[in-house]
Amino acid sequence: MQLTRHTDYAFRALIYLASMPNSTATIGTISETFGIPKSHLMKVISSLSAHGYVISTRGKSGGISLLKSAEEITLREIVMLMEKTLVPFDCIGQNCLILNSCRLNRAFLEAQKKYLESLESYTIADMLNNETIITIHGKASV
Amino acid sequence: MQLTRHTDYAFRALIYLASMPNSTATIGTISETFGIPKSHLMKVISSLSAHGYVISTRGKSGGISLLKSAEEITLREIVMLMEKTLVPFDCIGQNCLILNSCRLNRAFLEAQKKYLESLESYTIADMLNNETIITIHGKASV
Repeated sequence: MQLTRHTDYAFRALIYLASMPNSTATIGTISETFGIPKSHLMKVISSLSAHGYVISTRGKSGGISLLKSAEEITLREIVMLMEKTLVPFDCIGQNCLILNSCRLNRAFLEAQKKYLESLESYTIADMLNNETIITIHGKASV
Repeated sequence: MQLTRHTDYAFRALIYLASMPNSTATIGTISETFGIPKSHLMKVISSLSAHGYVISTRGKSGGISLLKSAEEITLREIVMLMEKTLVPFDCIGQNCLILNSCRLNRAFLEAQKKYLESLESYTIADMLNNETIITIHGKASV
């Protein structure tokens, strides 16, 4: 049931970027702050960038920043973007004998719908508080 | 988000046993029916047995059978028994910088509560239908 590391890293990167709305960050800084391997973080940022959540800019004050407002990014959409699969069981890959009649997947997809609906009600902005900002930057506002 | 193989195997074994309430099955038969590796299935059955869901009997007509009624076993309790962890993120193991202030886990635990509540409303008996029984045993009732 645990979410993948890439989903975890995506949330941390988004929280980090949301904590500094008027400036940019580097992969190196986010990687060091959270102890996330750079190679993994690059893949995560690449995915977030490809889907319009973050943007990378070049130049002296370049770096990564949020392209969408933190208030607009729900937890649900990041889970749906980052998780490798939302299929509860690998029935097809395992060629399960009772694949066509089994009711398990339907029950689990119903449960997953409730799970995702709950995540829909929270945004990245909701995950931020002063304590988090102070922990990341050493001061309340940056 | 995908459930572990052991959870998957536990459900298949329980559905199999529920499809033949008046007789016993062997690990070999369940393993062959679903193409589940015997070694994994033995661990799963051992766990289900230790928690009072199934019982193994010896002798001529011995084998594995349900100890609880299929109507009494909810999907929720099997997920809670079989999943290695229900913690959404490994914040402690990763020693996350914002561990103490982060609101992610609370939001995800709330979503997980909705997920588990939904699974609570279904039992192993609800997962069975005639088509499944025919697929497993070649006839509607055994």
